[in-house]
Amino acid sequence: MVDCPQQNGHRQQLPLFNASEHFFEGAEKLFEIWFDNDQQKRENGHKSTLRTIPENELRQLLNMAGCHILQVLRTAEIDAYLLSESSMFISDRRLILKTCGQTRPLLVIGKLLELARKHCQMDTVTNVYYSRKNFFRPQLQPQLHATFDEEVDYLDGFFQGGSAFCMGPLKHDRWYLYTLTTPRAPLNCSDHTLELQMTGIPVELLSVYSKSACPGGAAECTRRSGILSLLPRGTIVQDELFEPVGYSMNGVPAGDEYVTIHVTPEPEFCYASFETNHRRGCLYEQTLRVLDCFRPGRFILTLFANEHSNGAIEVQQRLWAEDFPGYRRLSVQMLRLQSDTLLFALYDRKDEK
Amino acid sequence: MVDCPQQNGHRQQLPLFNASEHFFEGAEKLFEIWFDNDQQKRENGHKSTLRTIPENELRQLLNMAGCHILQVLRTAEIDAYLLSESSMFISDRRLILKTCGQTRPLLVIGKLLELARKHCQMDTVTNVYYSRKNFFRPQLQPQLHATFDEEVDYLDGFFQGGSAFCMGPLKHDRWYLYTLTTPRAPLNCSDHTLELQMTGIPVELLSVYSKSACPGGAAECTRRSGILSLLPRGTIVQDELFEPVGYSMNGVPAGDEYVTIHVTPEPEFCYASFETNHRRGCLYEQTLRVLDCFRPGRFILTLFANEHSNGAIEVQQRLWAEDFPGYRRLSVQMLRLQSDTLLFALYDRKDEK
Repeated sequence: MVDCPQQNGHRQQLPLFNASEHFFEGAEKLFEIWFDNDQQKRENGHKSTLRTIPENELRQLLNMAGCHILQVLRTAEIDAYLLSESSMFISDRRLILKTCGQTRPLLVIGKLLELARKHCQMDTVTNVYYSRKNFFRPQLQPQLHATFDEEVDYLDGFFQGGSAFCMGPLKHDRWYLYTLTTPRAPLNCSDHTLELQMTGIPVELLSVYSKSACPGGAAECTRRSGILSLLPRGTIVQDELFEPVGYSMNGVPAGDEYVTIHVTPEPEFCYASFETNHRRGCLYEQTLRVLDCFRPGRFILTLFANEHSNGAIEVQQRLWAEDFPGYRRLSVQMLRLQSDTLLFALYDRKDEK
Repeated sequence: MVDCPQQNGHRQQLPLFNASEHFFEGAEKLFEIWFDNDQQKRENGHKSTLRTIPENELRQLLNMAGCHILQVLRTAEIDAYLLSESSMFISDRRLILKTCGQTRPLLVIGKLLELARKHCQMDTVTNVYYSRKNFFRPQLQPQLHATFDEEVDYLDGFFQGGSAFCMGPLKHDRWYLYTLTTPRAPLNCSDHTLELQMTGIPVELLSVYSKSACPGGAAECTRRSGILSLLPRGTIVQDELFEPVGYSMNGVPAGDEYVTIHVTPEPEFCYASFETNHRRGCLYEQTLRVLDCFRPGRFILTLFANEHSNGAIEVQQRLWAEDFPGYRRLSVQMLRLQSDTLLFALYDRKDEK
């Protein structure tokens, strides 16, 4: 395991649509892709892994999306990257790229497919997921990411047979999903993903995510914010506190499991996200701990689960049936995909007007 | 019960976007509204009913939407209207208006609210549902109905707190829903609604829905098409065969239950819909009978159910878990509303390419 020397990240400023107004789009674009070794190579005992893509190639790839690497953390099964805008995780056959601001993560697809073929002899994509909530300021997004229709058209240029959905109430916070599952996708591996996208966080909880409040830096912020105590015991952490404000962390609890948290703490457009696929304990209890840490006025919860994922189906059923304490469910939907089930839910805090 | 003398309906032709091409938009716009008597009136034993709205007022109302009454059927609990474009059902506190073609059913809302107040002393709306699938030719729809966004904006002008959803895959057949449930909505009445919206119907099944195939008229068509045997035993039927082709029927099995079926049989843009709230037997078996009658290449199924609706929740669970014989489920979603649960599913026939 290598923990690269920390570089200070300066969060990229957006071109302002009104020079007097500061704004940052915290809501991320989340792209996840799974590859398969082809049958012959597996029979030959040849094990390919996406982790053999050279780092200089990855740097060029991320450059296309409009972000760069701040920190790298390598464990036996996963490489975690803290980016200038959010995170990337690479394990043997899965790559997750999550970027906020005005980045264009979908621009990497063509090059990524080429790199997987060239360096890893992987030429079969088994699953693709692209998702995001509605942006606070869609008009500030670059071409390709300005509308979900454009994003879907772009994805369709690379993949055949994908489906696109809009979950949640159209007039309020909603969440877009593009998903592709091919017949080659393995059906018997345990997998689930929990994501929380939170807004309306109390000002007193936001102030800790700044250099002025945490002169000791990211590690101080991770501890004082309560984020450290959200994580499964033994999680290896990389974290970054931005100048003047803003926070990112990646954690690796074990194996190819990850946790990633990003906070945009400006009260006018505050946003925090929590995402994990960990299998260390109940995801319902995990959600309660995250809500206790951020106390969002409103949040979107998404939970993907397949029948092999330990306990996640039961959490979906519980969330379908009941609210979280102190929160009112504005909308809940379930979507059955080829190898997963997705639960989407939108909540607001009961003491909010 | 009065069954008005049948008038021959001539299906209104659309202005053609291409003079050489005949087209009719079979996909309906479905508006359903529930009123409450206010508390005081119920305590006084005064029972209001929407059925006291005079028929001449209803004719003016429908004129605003761009359709007119062909037949009226009144039973003890419900008035069923066959319209030049689809159907209307009025019971004590519920009005359902379902219209196809280029009609504008939402234009009736303002006048309807006025009539309910004036003739029925009903000034409280408890539930609103507006739904439709994506149109075959949205560009031919009149202003207000051209996009779902416009429709939602218009509804928001009358009702506060409604929610809008898009169910199903965005790139394929999908289904839009606007729904409002107020705290005044009763939670303990049994209610469910099943709707099937079918396309890709085999040509050999479509030919019966024409005057040339059924010179005996609508009754002959209802029998020979197999529609009569779809209906619960004892259903009272009103039906209409259009010139030169096209078919509509309303049925009243009992109480305030209804069945309504509409067929646009031109192979190039064929479409058939089946809708019911009946409580005469299993809705799963009912669906199998409808599929056997129309053998659609593709169909959308929607099923609303509340916890008091006998058996409908169980049908939702079954449809979540398994396909219909001979059909492949392309998408299935569930949405939890304040007093109902909705299942949406999209299927295609396995022998379709």
